Formats: sequence, structure tokens, C-alpha cells
Amino acid sequence: MASYRLDDLAQRVGGEVRGDPDRLVRGIATLEQAGPDELSFLTNVRYRKAAAESGAAAILVGSGTELAGCDLLEAKEPYVALAQLLELFHPQRTMQAGISPDARIGRDVLLGQDVRVGPFAVVGDGCELGDRAVLEAGSVLGEACRVGCDTRLGPRVVLYDGTEVGARCIVHAGVVLGGDGFGFATSAGKHRKVPQVGRVVVEDDVEIGANSCVDRAMLGHTRIGRGSKIDDLVMIAHGVSIGPDSLLAGQAGVAGSARLGARATLAGQVGVSGHLELGEGVTVAAKSAVFQDLPAGAFVAGVPAFDHARWRRSQALCKRLPELRNQLRELRTRLTALEDRLQGED
Amino acid sequence: MASYRLDDLAQRVGGEVRGDPDRLVRGIATLEQAGPDELSFLTNVRYRKAAAESGAAAILVGSGTELAGCDLLEAKEPYVALAQLLELFHPQRTMQAGISPDARIGRDVLLGQDVRVGPFAVVGDGCELGDRAVLEAGSVLGEACRVGCDTRLGPRVVLYDGTEVGARCIVHAGVVLGGDGFGFATSAGKHRKVPQVGRVVVEDDVEIGANSCVDRAMLGHTRIGRGSKIDDLVMIAHGVSIGPDSLLAGQAGVAGSARLGARATLAGQVGVSGHLELGEGVTVAAKSAVFQDLPAGAFVAGVPAFDHARWRRSQALCKRLPELRNQLRELRTRLTALEDRLQGED
Amino acid sequence: MASYRLDDLAQRVGGEVRGDPDRLVRGIATLEQAGPDELSFLTNVRYRKAAAESGAAAILVGSGTELAGCDLLEAKEPYVALAQLLELFHPQRTMQAGISPDARIGRDVLLGQDVRVGPFAVVGDGCELGDRAVLEAGSVLGEACRVGCDTRLGPRVVLYDGTEVGARCIVHAGVVLGGDGFGFATSAGKHRKVPQVGRVVVEDDVEIGANSCVDRAMLGHTRIGRGSKIDDLVMIAHGVSIGPDSLLAGQAGVAGSARLGARATLAGQVGVSGHLELGEGVTVAAKSAVFQDLPAGAFVAGVPAFDHARWRRSQALCKRLPELRNQLRELRTRLTALEDRLQGED
Repeated sequence: MASYRLDDLAQRVGGEVRGDPDRLVRGIATLEQAGPDELSFLTNVRYRKAAAESGAAAILVGSGTELAGCDLLEAKEPYVALAQLLELFHPQRTMQAGISPDARIGRDVLLGQDVRVGPFAVVGDGCELGDRAVLEAGSVLGEACRVGCDTRLGPRVVLYDGTEVGARCIVHAGVVLGGDGFGFATSAGKHRKVPQVGRVVVEDDVEIGANSCVDRAMLGHTRIGRGSKIDDLVMIAHGVSIGPDSLLAGQAGVAGSARLGARATLAGQVGVSGHLELGEGVTVAAKSAVFQDLPAGAFVAGVPAFDHARWRRSQALCKRLPELRNQLRELRTRLTALEDRLQGED
Repeated sequence: MASYRLDDLAQRVGGEVRGDPDRLVRGIATLEQAGPDELSFLTNVRYRKAAAESGAAAILVGSGTELAGCDLLEAKEPYVALAQLLELFHPQRTMQAGISPDARIGRDVLLGQDVRVGPFAVVGDGCELGDRAVLEAGSVLGEACRVGCDTRLGPRVVLYDGTEVGARCIVHAGVVLGGDGFGFATSAGKHRKVPQVGRVVVEDDVEIGANSCVDRAMLGHTRIGRGSKIDDLVMIAHGVSIGPDSLLAGQAGVAGSARLGARATLAGQVGVSGHLELGEGVTVAAKSAVFQDLPAGAFVAGVPAFDHARWRRSQALCKRLPELRNQLRELRTRLTALEDRLQGED
Repeated sequence: MASYRLDDLAQRVGGEVRGDPDRLVRGIATLEQAGPDELSFLTNVRYRKAAAESGAAAILVGSGTELAGCDLLEAKEPYVALAQLLELFHPQRTMQAGISPDARIGRDVLLGQDVRVGPFAVVGDGCELGDRAVLEAGSVLGEACRVGCDTRLGPRVVLYDGTEVGARCIVHAGVVLGGDGFGFATSAGKHRKVPQVGRVVVEDDVEIGANSCVDRAMLGHTRIGRGSKIDDLVMIAHGVSIGPDSLLAGQAGVAGSARLGARATLAGQVGVSGHLELGEGVTVAAKSAVFQDLPAGAFVAGVPAFDHARWRRSQALCKRLPELRNQLRELRTRLTALEDRLQGED
């Protein structure tokens, strides 16, 4: 593995060295595991003690972080710098291009240059795969799907008919795009399937975590906006639109026809009800459920979700309800005593 | 694509035209996307404005809906009518029958007429597939599974040994039926696996969404009742029984041995604890958790779940707890003032 | 199927017969389904009535359980005894060893003795499979994965590059181990992928339920401790460490870098925030979310989670908030009346 001087690394990430610029760095490791030729990082104050005790050659920190006794690489956005340095030390492996003889490619399929299709993958009739697209082992593409350039579908990804995935996307193992939306018309207690004839469109630069599901729209399309990142086991229902550059953490779910604006953040296990409009930059705290429209910039929590600061106060009081109830009882006792006394005076 | 006169469509769904009966309709589209030869629909009041601005040829509405300036197709159950019309304009494609040469079929397998088995599917010894059953690419059936007539298993569905799926079911990609239930006998801090030797039985006309899981029973069977519809990423634990015609929305979970009556509705991300009995027609609001038995017809919300109307009032007050606390403080101050004054009078 | 005398069974599980020791038992069944030559069991008081009405030959119960009118097999740990008896009557089927001609094995793969690899499974270069390891149909192993002796990977399991699974593990269908962690460095509203170059290590004797996901660490490894059992649709994020002998029920989720001590129990749909430390033996009630560190032995509930006993009291009062509010109003009315009266006296 290549080695770099600490000031060389600092220059690459637009940072500054505080300490010995000639330190040699041969890799990046966690605070606990880093050895004397490895860089580590401190981007969360919880780990200050571990940083102080680390055997790392140097530690990447945010501007102004004090940490005695070790060489520092200071960066304005240390997490961005960490990403850059990880890319430097761990360049992405190029997968060998080529169509496995064990893959099955349908008729009228357009294959770009240097496409890779793994064993036991199935590509339906009329699909288009962009240059350098990768379909790992066991992926299944229905008919007329489109996969953009440099996009990588992990093992066993399923794209139902007509699904479109943009360029430079990463879709992890087990993801299902374009399954039927959950649409049933109930009459006299029986549920009749409402045909789901729309599609799923995933725009460029999207990442989707393992075993997540995006359902096709009843009509039109379900859309995952450009640059959005979706974690594992997330469910996006039919007709939903996720704005660009949104973040949806693990096990979050968005119900049918909800529309999230740009840069939405749903923390883990969040739910959003159907048909809602969430403005740009909305943030929903973990485990919350949104039951009404939210204006741009809202930061909410709770079930149903409301203003986060207010939710914190309410929850603290909720926890103290036994005390509040006791205070109420005490007041009643005192009030009754006063009343009795005044009664006695009459 | 075929075209239909509006009054012809009305007749097919038992509805009535309000406007021009001769309007030609060539397709169905969303309110935003519908053009002058397409029908759209208004089944949710949130979209009134979009309906008023729609360029659709006509709009399908519920009885009595007022909407000026456009031709209407009025139906008593507009969502049912929509399902019928979508079926008309988008008839389900018949998949070509035949066993892929790349599928592997075990010994003593009974295949009905016109069965389709896709590439890289595996059918274990002793399985039975009904007429016109479809197993898409990469499905894996263990030994002695039964799949009913006209049932369709999407790509990469897994049925463990002995699983039974009825007729006319739709099982979406990635679903796992018959994995072991989560049963461990703990002794001295160690967890010993309790063999899960029961099965999964899915009755007729059931639909199960992508990547959902139904575990086999320890003994006996886990049962999904006839006509029930299950969304994506739902988990049904071992020994559960779901009544007929139930609806389980996305990411809901039902713990071991719980029994849901007919026509249960679990909204998204609901949890039901183990060993509970839920009566017929129970409805559980989104994100709630049921920790006790529920009588027929109950409509509940919260964690733990209780009467929905009462939950709404409680939640509203929960949000207002800071004000209630302040009122309590104010009362105490006033009461103390009174006490002091009366004390002074003594 | 073999038959056993009741006293023989009692001896095998270290229990005692109360009733006829010569009863012949040919199988085990649920209380409802057991016939006159089958043993059933009563390990949950909810089922007392069913036990009383059961047609079973005999019933396995815990020490001291009274149940008139039937022969009993009494055991100190009846659930452990049940596991033992199920193993006796349903010995695990040995899967036939051998590499399917339809599997694809990479270069430099080390195969132990009596390994089984099913059809359409893919084993990447440099993998190691221990003796008697089983890879069922459609499993995909990336490069340099290790699978221990007697471990069984169900159909369509995916192990990304470098994933390690110990001995005697059971990994159910659809599980994904080693997908990228959800790590993005956000700058000016854009999310840059932070390379996830760590691994997943699953220790010995672990079971993981269908369609669950364990993400690889950014650096170092995500670790599932020895003897831990994980249910379906659970998500373990990057860098998490789960202590040995932990239990994680269905749809639980643990966010990045959280550390759970030995013998943790997360009930269904629980969430644990990132970077937390949970001590040994922590129990989290269903549907709760842990937002702060927890000491050893803590039993918590709620969102955010706090002491379980206190949570029960708070929740009961939460439900009664409308009454508390009314009491508050009544006190205010009475207090105002007193004030007015005293005012009048001035």
C-alpha cells in the first residue's frame, strides 16, 4: 500500500497539519485499531477519550479541535476529508467487464461499452444498459428496463418491467424496484386489486441499501430524486416522489403518493403517511411518524410528529407525569382544606 | 390502444355520465399528466385543485362530487370503478408458458397445464404447481411445496420445504415463506434453538409485497387467510393466523402466535405482540403497537394501543403538556398566595 | 415415526411424570391438534383452557403447574425440554453433500469436507468453506469470504467481499451481509459517499432471520457476537457490535457504531441510535427507541426509552390526560371561586 506524508494528505483535502508534516501514513484505521503509520479521525466528541489513547500516527479533526499529544490533520469539513482520504487509500476496484456465459440476455437489448453482467443474471427483452453498468450475480431485470452509465446493481437486485435507474447509482443486494403498489378497492369487505401500471424512476447518483423496496406507481411514476441516498430495508410506496439530495435512514417508510421536497432527512424507522407534502429541507427525528403536511425547513419528532423542540419538552413532561399527577393531587388537598376552613368560617 | 366513449365506460362500471357522453377516452392518467383523450380520477379531496386544473378528457368521481368545467364519470364506488377501468385499458399480459431450460426441476414434481418456470428457478422434489402457475426467474422452492392455479411468484421468491400457496395469489420479488420462526429456549444465558417443524399455509387470493417474510410455525402452521393483502417488508412470525380479507400495510409486524380476525387492518409500521387475539374488523392506526387482546371492531392507536378517539385527545394534550404544567404552577402560586393570606388573618 | 414411553421422555429431559409413565408418545403437536398418541405443552398461562380441552396423550408443563385430568411431563425448564423433544422427534435432515454442477466456484476456493453448494450459487475467488457448510440455491459469496464448519446459508443469501461467518450458524433466505454502510459526508447540500472498507464478522452459533441486513463497517468490522440470535427484517448498521448471546426480534434496527453488551434483548421493532453503549443484559421493550447510553441490566421502554416500570406509569397517565386536564380545570374553577369570595370580603 502506498504511503503519504501528512502534509501531502493535508494538501489533498485542503487542510492543515498541526504537528509533524513529515509523518508517514500508510493507511486509515479506527481510533482503537490504528497503528503508528496509520491515520485515524475524530469527528464525534463521544470518542475524545479514545482519540487521546489512540496509537495512530496522526488524527484527522475539525478546525479548532484541541487534542494534546498527537499530530493532527485539521480540516474544515473533516468527514468530507475522511471520504477523500478513504478514496485515496482504497480506490474502487474496477470490476472486469463482460457478459457471463451463465447470464441470460433477452432480445433487443442495448448493451453499452464495458458492461458487466454476472452469472445467473437475467436481462429482459428491450432493456438498455449504459456504459460500464454492472449487474452482479443473480440480478433480474424485467422487460424494457434502463440502467444508466456507471451504475452498479448488487447481487440479486430485481427491476420489474419498465424500471429506469439513472447514471452512477449504487443499488445494493436484494433491492426490489417496481413491485406492485399496495392498491386495493374494497367493496363489501373484499379487496379488488387496482392494477399498478405506472413505473419506478430512479434518477442519477442515487444509492439504495440492501433489501429496500420501491413500488411502481398506479399511474405515472414513483420517483427517487437525483443524489438521494436510501438505507437498508426502506419502503417507498407507489406514486411517492422523493426530492433530490434526500437522506432516508434504515427501515424508514413513505406511504403512497407522499411528496418529499429536496434535501429531506428521514431518520431511522420514520414513517410518512400517504398523500402528504413535505417542503424542502424537512428533517424527521428517528422513530417518528408524520401525519400532516410540513413546511420547508421543519424539524419534527413524535407520533404524530410536531416541532422537535416542543416535542422534547413534551416528552420530558410525559416522563414526569406521575409527579405532575401528584402535584395535582396535593393542590386539590390543599384547596379542599382551604374551602373547608372558609366553609367553617361561614 | 383502444378507445371508448365515456358513456360506454360508464355502463361498464355501473356509473353515470355528467357531461358529454360521446367523449372519446383512449387511456387513464394522473390528474397532472392526463391529456384531452385520457380519463383521470378524483378519489381524495386533497386533489380537488389538481382536478380543477387537469387537462383530462373527463374525470371519474364519487357520487355527488361537484367539479365545474369538466365532464364527469360518476360512480358509487369510484375506486372500484377505477380498478375496473384500469383492467380494461391495461389487460394483464399473459406470460408465455413453458419451463426454462435453465430451471432445475426436482423429482416427482407435479406440473399443471401451461405452467411457466423462469430461468435459474429451482423446484424441489415432490412439489406441485397448479395450472398456469408462474415461477419467475431465480425462485427457489424447497421440497414438497404446493403452488395453486394461476398463482404467480415473482423473481427470487423463496418457499421453504412444505410451504403451501393457494390459487390466484401474487407473491412479489424477494418474499420468503417458511423460514424458521424465532424460537429459542434460554437456559443459563444461552439460547437453544427450538426446532421449527410446522409450515406456512397461504390461502387463495392472497397478495404479498416485496421482501416480506412469513415464518413457519414451530408446530402446526402459520396461516394467511383467503383474500388477505400484505404490503412490502411485512413480517409475520411463527404460528400467526391472519383472518381472511385482512390488509397489512408496509413494514407491519405480527409476533408469534397472534391471531387476527377477518378483515383486520394494520396500517404502516404497526406491531402486534405475540399470543394476542384480535377480533374481526379490528383497525390499528399507523405506527401503533398492540399489546393486549382487542374486541371485534376496535379502532386503536398508540403505544400501547387504545381507543383511537381517546388516543387523539390524549396526544393533543401530550403536545400541550408544557402549558398544562404552567397552568399547574400558576394554580400553585395562586393557592399559596391564598394560604398565606389566610395564614396572615389568623 | 418412533414411539417413546412418557417416562422415557421424562428421563431424556430430566423431568418427571405425573400420571401414567407408560403412555406411548409418537409425536408432538399443538394443544388444539394433538391426538391421543401425541405430546403437547403448556408454557404460557394464556393457553390453560386449551390445555384443559386438549386431546393430547400428555402435556409438558413447568414444575408445579396444576392441570387436572391429564398425564403430565413436568420439567424445570419446560421450553428447553420442548426443544430437546422436538429434536428427538424431528432430527435435522442431513443435506446431501456435493457441489451442484450448476454452481459457479471461483479460483483459489478452499472447500472443506462434505460441503454442499446448491444450484446457481456463486462462490467468489479466495473463499473458504468449512466442513459440512451448506450454501443453498442462489446464494452469492463475494471474494475472500469465510464460512465456518456446519454453517448453513439459506437460499439467496448474499455475502459481500470479505464477510466472515463462524461455525454452526444458520443464515436464512435473503439475508445480506456486508452491504455498504450508510455513510455520506454532506457538503453544500450534496452527499458524498464515504467508502465503506471494513467488513462483517459473524461469530459462531449465530442465527439470522430472513431478509435481515448487516452492513459492513466503514473501517474495522461490524460484529455479531457468538450465540446471538437475530430475527427477520432486522437491520444492523455499519460498525455496530452486538454482544454474545443477544436476542434481536423482528424488524429491530441498530444504528451505526452502537455497541450492545452481552445478552442484550431488543424486542420487535425496537430502534437503537448510533454511537450508543448499552451495558450487559439490557432489555428494550417492543417498539421503543433508545436515544442514550444504558447501564448494565437496564429494562427500558418508550420513545425515547427510559425505565420500564416508570414508562408504564407514565403511559397509563398519558392515556388519562383528558381526565387530568379536567381535574386541573375544576381546581382552577374552585380556586377562582375562593379568590372571588375573599376578594369580596376585602
